[in-house]
Amino acid sequence: MFDRLSPMNLKAIGIVRSDFKKRTSARLDLRKMIADIEIDPTLTEALEGLEGFSHVIVLYWMHQAVFNKRQLKTYPMGNKVAGVQGLFAVRTPNRPNPIGKTTVKLLERHGNILKVQGLDAIDGSLVLDIKPYIPGYDSASDATVPDWVRIEKQ
Amino acid sequence: MFDRLSPMNLKAIGIVRSDFKKRTSARLDLRKMIADIEIDPTLTEALEGLEGFSHVIVLYWMHQAVFNKRQLKTYPMGNKVAGVQGLFAVRTPNRPNPIGKTTVKLLERHGNILKVQGLDAIDGSLVLDIKPYIPGYDSASDATVPDWVRIEKQ
Repeated sequence: MFDRLSPMNLKAIGIVRSDFKKRTSARLDLRKMIADIEIDPTLTEALEGLEGFSHVIVLYWMHQAVFNKRQLKTYPMGNKVAGVQGLFAVRTPNRPNPIGKTTVKLLERHGNILKVQGLDAIDGSLVLDIKPYIPGYDSASDATVPDWVRIEKQ
Repeated sequence: MFDRLSPMNLKAIGIVRSDFKKRTSARLDLRKMIADIEIDPTLTEALEGLEGFSHVIVLYWMHQAVFNKRQLKTYPMGNKVAGVQGLFAVRTPNRPNPIGKTTVKLLERHGNILKVQGLDAIDGSLVLDIKPYIPGYDSASDATVPDWVRIEKQ
């Protein structure tokens, strides 16, 4: 509908190296898992200063996701009691653009390698962007959610 | 470097309608601005349940951004005192994949139109994804930032 306006071309800037090898619904455990993000070495200079942040936002491509135009509603992950919801109201990977967005703890940076905790991207996922996490801009202290949401506490 | 692994094709799911017509450095004021997001009407069903959340995350394409491979470091927006930083350590739109990520307040949903507050996308920006904002998953209560970051309080 809107695609005629401009072309949107993505390029991978890195790749996820993780022990998380396939999709499961056990997302909670992933919040403790440690993974490496290997950034294209020609972009290493672009990471300078990132290590000053305790947390970063990772955007990545969920390549195993499958979007079905005739299935616009789904159960929230691991929560059949909630009833089906529109897919934009849940965090299913099966969305029109399978871009994952996770806030992770940045443990270390060694050159072009970021060691992070809490990344729920499977091994081999292509990374699209790394952004510094900025409290107040990225967070909403007064946010509320529907009763059916199982909040994952950190 | 990693692009051989899989094709990544984006499609617009919506468009931003805003009084914010061109790029400025006055991002702080944008946090109060109200804008509409018009979602492709064939996807309206996918928005069901979103109105139960006070805040949503908007991913959008920053079509006016220009990435220059030879300019991997930049000044943080409106902060020349900080010195140059790697572009992944700042929120400049001029990054390899110009995907904007903003947490906004969801004021209302009328069918396929979302009225939001705090969207710093310029008028006409194509929207890639809408996700519900989930405290604890999207936020980090113990996050720290370098001294040079000007934190935007809400």
